[in-house]
Amino acid sequence: MSLLVVGSVAFDSIQTPHGYAEGVLGGSATFFSVAASWFAPVSVVAVVGEDFDAEHLRVFQSRAIDTTGIERVPGRTFRWRGEYAGSMNEARTLETQLNVFERFAPKIPPSYLDSEFVFLGNIDPVLQLHVRQQLPKARLAALDTMNFWIQGKLDDLKKTLAAVDVLLVNEGEARMLSGDHNPKKAAKAIREMGPRIVVIKRGEHGVTLFAQGSIFSAPGYPLDVVHDPTGAGDTFAGGFMGHLARTADLSDANFRRAVVFGSVMASFAVEEFGLRRLLRLTRQEIDTRYREFKTLTHFDPDPEVRTEEADRSPL
Amino acid sequence: MSLLVVGSVAFDSIQTPHGYAEGVLGGSATFFSVAASWFAPVSVVAVVGEDFDAEHLRVFQSRAIDTTGIERVPGRTFRWRGEYAGSMNEARTLETQLNVFERFAPKIPPSYLDSEFVFLGNIDPVLQLHVRQQLPKARLAALDTMNFWIQGKLDDLKKTLAAVDVLLVNEGEARMLSGDHNPKKAAKAIREMGPRIVVIKRGEHGVTLFAQGSIFSAPGYPLDVVHDPTGAGDTFAGGFMGHLARTADLSDANFRRAVVFGSVMASFAVEEFGLRRLLRLTRQEIDTRYREFKTLTHFDPDPEVRTEEADRSPL
Repeated sequence: MSLLVVGSVAFDSIQTPHGYAEGVLGGSATFFSVAASWFAPVSVVAVVGEDFDAEHLRVFQSRAIDTTGIERVPGRTFRWRGEYAGSMNEARTLETQLNVFERFAPKIPPSYLDSEFVFLGNIDPVLQLHVRQQLPKARLAALDTMNFWIQGKLDDLKKTLAAVDVLLVNEGEARMLSGDHNPKKAAKAIREMGPRIVVIKRGEHGVTLFAQGSIFSAPGYPLDVVHDPTGAGDTFAGGFMGHLARTADLSDANFRRAVVFGSVMASFAVEEFGLRRLLRLTRQEIDTRYREFKTLTHFDPDPEVRTEEADRSPL
Repeated sequence: MSLLVVGSVAFDSIQTPHGYAEGVLGGSATFFSVAASWFAPVSVVAVVGEDFDAEHLRVFQSRAIDTTGIERVPGRTFRWRGEYAGSMNEARTLETQLNVFERFAPKIPPSYLDSEFVFLGNIDPVLQLHVRQQLPKARLAALDTMNFWIQGKLDDLKKTLAAVDVLLVNEGEARMLSGDHNPKKAAKAIREMGPRIVVIKRGEHGVTLFAQGSIFSAPGYPLDVVHDPTGAGDTFAGGFMGHLARTADLSDANFRRAVVFGSVMASFAVEEFGLRRLLRLTRQEIDTRYREFKTLTHFDPDPEVRTEEADRSPL
């Protein structure tokens, strides 16, 4: 099944304890679509400026991503400058130039209108809802948002939440949106706003999916080094939605696999700056790490050989 | 197999967003031994003052804990006053009265000298090593420590680390001890100091065990409410070591089960103030939550095998 993403394309300048990258291709739609492209056909809706040239377009094309919906307008592309320090859990934004993104009005090409899987990246919730309403055939619509919209456009965001199936947020956003510190209660409160599934992202600590009668936790993958966390959340979403679109299976068991594939893709993304690692992946690397997630969390609750002595209660 | 713990017995006064408890029985040896008593016979080495009376002793005796090694001396028992706010990840210490704990010189009763499983709770590393050296039959010795000793007695701590099999620390302590922000590298560096197994505790985010060629991550149990995190780390250690002592099985598979039993016990401990929840547990509650941990982290990597349950859609 084809998968549509609406979000940002950006040029990021990133400082981390492991190095510096200047003006590298990024943005939510970019990370999402490159990650998802490993699983399913992806179409992008985004806006770029005149500084987005053939070389950048080729990045999308190299992953067979449909770029019909990438609109090129006069001006400069969205630019973000940030840095990470210490355990790199949070970016410090040094500079944001919205540029052409400021007046982004997503236009859905006619060829995208049948999309059955949709990811509404972190943009104004009014625009997210507008996109959602143009896609009546969507079987699964997932939403990302951020503190800025929760604080500034809560009423609009709530209307958008009522129109989607899945919300992906980090812990702080879940807390702010629900008013509850407890993740389980926060997820319950958010699920009552509309999304039947809430995915709470905890960075290096992993991800928890909350659904009706089911909770699934995946740990973070223990990496030797994290070079650049930029785009990890959107990359997670790309693997998650990509797997769901590929399989078109909305069972609880398959949502769990989707969480793991999302975690796998995010773990690769942060190994190098920008998109570098995601672009030189192999399907085998993805599958190998997916198996490693199984090993990482696997325990056999019942020891094969049990003796009376071992089972005896001492009390 | 019998299990020995050396650590503190304390009276805690705790403020959390959910209430206040004044002078309740706590301390590392207490939480550890009560948790471990659900799995194996436990012996305690600790010091208490004249304010520790028959009522407190009965708490240990009610769990069939061997209190021969609880030494009662003139003066008052160790007292701690602290508070938790927000998401309650960290205690703020308001007052510490070491009292009789200041001159604690652990004495191992002759009947304890054959102990094969040992937990050296968070005390001066010089004392921990002294205890360890008196227990030549120990098959598994586990250690807890804290920032105070890492900063103040690093050389002594390193000697103690060289004499134990397992170190249990939180993320910040692992970082401080190893000098590395990356948990995998931190664990590797610590393993080179002596312990073959390093368990990094992440509070509500769960636990990761690092061993030779094996990493196991267990998530935090999603609780509806956390009333009081005091003692969660020692309670984890109690479930972990208790399961190992009960089974006397030091295989990788069994260490994984031990991590889950530790997580189960810690998840119960924080549901109510002090020891309250741990004291009114049932074996069935423990086993039920243990199975819930399996469900919480389980995914079937291969969708080919499908069951009705697995096909149930959460949507």
